[in-house]
Amino acid sequence: MSLIVQKYGGTSVGDVERIKNVAQRVLATRDEGNQVVVVVSAMAGATDHLIGLARQISTVPDAREMDMLLASGEQVSVALLAMALHELGCTAVSMTGPQAGIFTDASHTRARISRIATERVMDRLGNGHVVIIAGFQGRSETDEITTLGRGGSDTSAVAIAAALKADCCEIYTDVDGVYTADPRLVPEARKLNAISHDEMLELASLGAKVLQSRAVEFAKKYSVPLVVRSSFNTAPGTWIVKETDQMEDVVVRGVSLDKNQAKITFLHVPDRPGVAATIFKHLADQTINVDMIVQNISEQGKTDVSFTVPADDLERSLRVSREIAGLVGAADVSANSDIAKLSAVGVGMRTHTGIAAKMFGILSEAQVNIAMISTSEIKISCVIPKHQADQALRLVHNGFGLGAGENPAAEN
Amino acid sequence: MSLIVQKYGGTSVGDVERIKNVAQRVLATRDEGNQVVVVVSAMAGATDHLIGLARQISTVPDAREMDMLLASGEQVSVALLAMALHELGCTAVSMTGPQAGIFTDASHTRARISRIATERVMDRLGNGHVVIIAGFQGRSETDEITTLGRGGSDTSAVAIAAALKADCCEIYTDVDGVYTADPRLVPEARKLNAISHDEMLELASLGAKVLQSRAVEFAKKYSVPLVVRSSFNTAPGTWIVKETDQMEDVVVRGVSLDKNQAKITFLHVPDRPGVAATIFKHLADQTINVDMIVQNISEQGKTDVSFTVPADDLERSLRVSREIAGLVGAADVSANSDIAKLSAVGVGMRTHTGIAAKMFGILSEAQVNIAMISTSEIKISCVIPKHQADQALRLVHNGFGLGAGENPAAEN
Repeated sequence: MSLIVQKYGGTSVGDVERIKNVAQRVLATRDEGNQVVVVVSAMAGATDHLIGLARQISTVPDAREMDMLLASGEQVSVALLAMALHELGCTAVSMTGPQAGIFTDASHTRARISRIATERVMDRLGNGHVVIIAGFQGRSETDEITTLGRGGSDTSAVAIAAALKADCCEIYTDVDGVYTADPRLVPEARKLNAISHDEMLELASLGAKVLQSRAVEFAKKYSVPLVVRSSFNTAPGTWIVKETDQMEDVVVRGVSLDKNQAKITFLHVPDRPGVAATIFKHLADQTINVDMIVQNISEQGKTDVSFTVPADDLERSLRVSREIAGLVGAADVSANSDIAKLSAVGVGMRTHTGIAAKMFGILSEAQVNIAMISTSEIKISCVIPKHQADQALRLVHNGFGLGAGENPAAEN
Repeated sequence: MSLIVQKYGGTSVGDVERIKNVAQRVLATRDEGNQVVVVVSAMAGATDHLIGLARQISTVPDAREMDMLLASGEQVSVALLAMALHELGCTAVSMTGPQAGIFTDASHTRARISRIATERVMDRLGNGHVVIIAGFQGRSETDEITTLGRGGSDTSAVAIAAALKADCCEIYTDVDGVYTADPRLVPEARKLNAISHDEMLELASLGAKVLQSRAVEFAKKYSVPLVVRSSFNTAPGTWIVKETDQMEDVVVRGVSLDKNQAKITFLHVPDRPGVAATIFKHLADQTINVDMIVQNISEQGKTDVSFTVPADDLERSLRVSREIAGLVGAADVSANSDIAKLSAVGVGMRTHTGIAAKMFGILSEAQVNIAMISTSEIKISCVIPKHQADQALRLVHNGFGLGAGENPAAEN
């Protein structure tokens, strides 16, 4: 008998019919002789509706009260799923995050799980129940309701799987799994059978929103076997696994594109120590989330400093940057929102050379100008003009042999 | 400094604007130098929406899961009200029923409050917070979420007021207070300044849905000063008070009408011991809620037994009754849904005689036929034809001097 943790996202429980479908799926898993714990998000739209109500009352609602408010969403979906299982003759019980013993720190709206008291869940599992747990939420040591931040249900599921020493954690979502690229942009993109934790982390942080990064980190840390599958079909999905030697045979696992970026440049900044520190300290003080940073070479004691920010933050970032420009003696500040970040990810880059050169070559051949470059051990990112981004993504994807019939790591 | 518990119903917090109005009211009460605890229902419509979802999944949803589901409703309204108070610069904190220490028995969907652990609420009050508590809900001793049944927020408020030894409990609703009769039916009806607990209990059970009966019982038992007021104006409302000698000067405090009744009659039942017991035991076994019962005098060893049931239950009751008719040897079973129950209530009946006769006289003069009669110490109820009910209500109301300019207990 295996113990399986299944997590269903908001779209998968978006209406009564879908909740009934999830119940069928959960029952089928149990009928195969498994113990099942189900982690559920709020019904699609519910959280946005609640946030909308809060915003009508307060522009900056209190974090503790936001947690109180938002945690109601999963309480609805877990209860409805329990009822749907009862209708199928399956013993099942729902629990809020606090009831399930999910303890967190006290950082409201972005709490981190500190420990999980599994007695109550184990007790019910032992009595033959399917246990349905509200994702995204927990309780602090002082019995306050906390939430883990958007997408936190993935983290809940993996953490619960780790605490229960589950045999695997299945994340059900509205996509089939992880692809070599976004199939809406790259028709040749193929679903991966497996991807390493680090590759998944790079892709998640690059905007492939299949899995929350913290969930992947948890799975890596506690060696939780993790699979991403569609809740609308029975395709096998993508396993997120420990890195193996064979994985390095494939240099690029996938490519991703983030169009929600904008670039700000400080022009002709005096090139002396402390300038960059001043700029980015002030930006951080204003909680502006800076991604890539590039400083060009100095000419006549002056240099240009460029960085990217989320496009939604451009206006605010620009306002703050103009203030900073005075402090550091920059001649001017310019902005460009016609950019996109194109990235290639693969653990094979660790052992293979020339990957960056190959990527630059593909872009150059297509007359795509690279504005910024950033690399990690297993990733290369290039900032390019947004209007060329879709074409460039497809060229790089196919250039690295990720298309149909060429990719040994993908399904045939 | 007084400690005041205020309760706002679903209509009073039905949308964002109304929540803001409630916040203003709460703040005004605090600014007068009081400590304030606020008990809130779910936003109007929220509970019905949740029940609708559950019904789409299950015709008889599990009671525990219903509680899990429905308790989410107040969690939303308390959080939003806390945010609205923060916007006004007022320190405030929301609590679920479980967080506020409201312990109940384990009877899901109709739990009874067993004890209230007040430490957390008192602590926050002591720190200068307005404490906002989710009504209608509590927790069992095994940390399950329970609810008190529809309208249970009134009971929550009074129980919390009793536990905190509050100076008074104010129930805010969408009516101005308790009237001598339903003003929609009787234009001469007047608002009462005060009414005794027992009178209020009789009126509540007779369909004047201003206050939940259990809340009134609680207020009586623990001597909680209780007032019903409108949340939409500043009129003083109606106090529900301990009975005083002067109250008996008014023989009839108010009249009420219940049109949601139907009558079933067992015809020509053998008049022997055990027949009534058999009939009403079988009805009770089917959880049919029987109200008035009348057995006519025996003729030739046969009698007729009539009783009333809620009109919504008529069809089912009739089906069950036909089965019972065979068991007890009744000739036939008849039904009549053209009935209404007209009642007059007043503690003065204890000391005054001839009240029943006067009521029958008023009805007789108006050619209203009385089908059934039932009396208690402080109440007379008559079942009359529904099509004459509105007219009869007004005649009885005015006949007992409850109209304008005539009633010393009502406002001028």
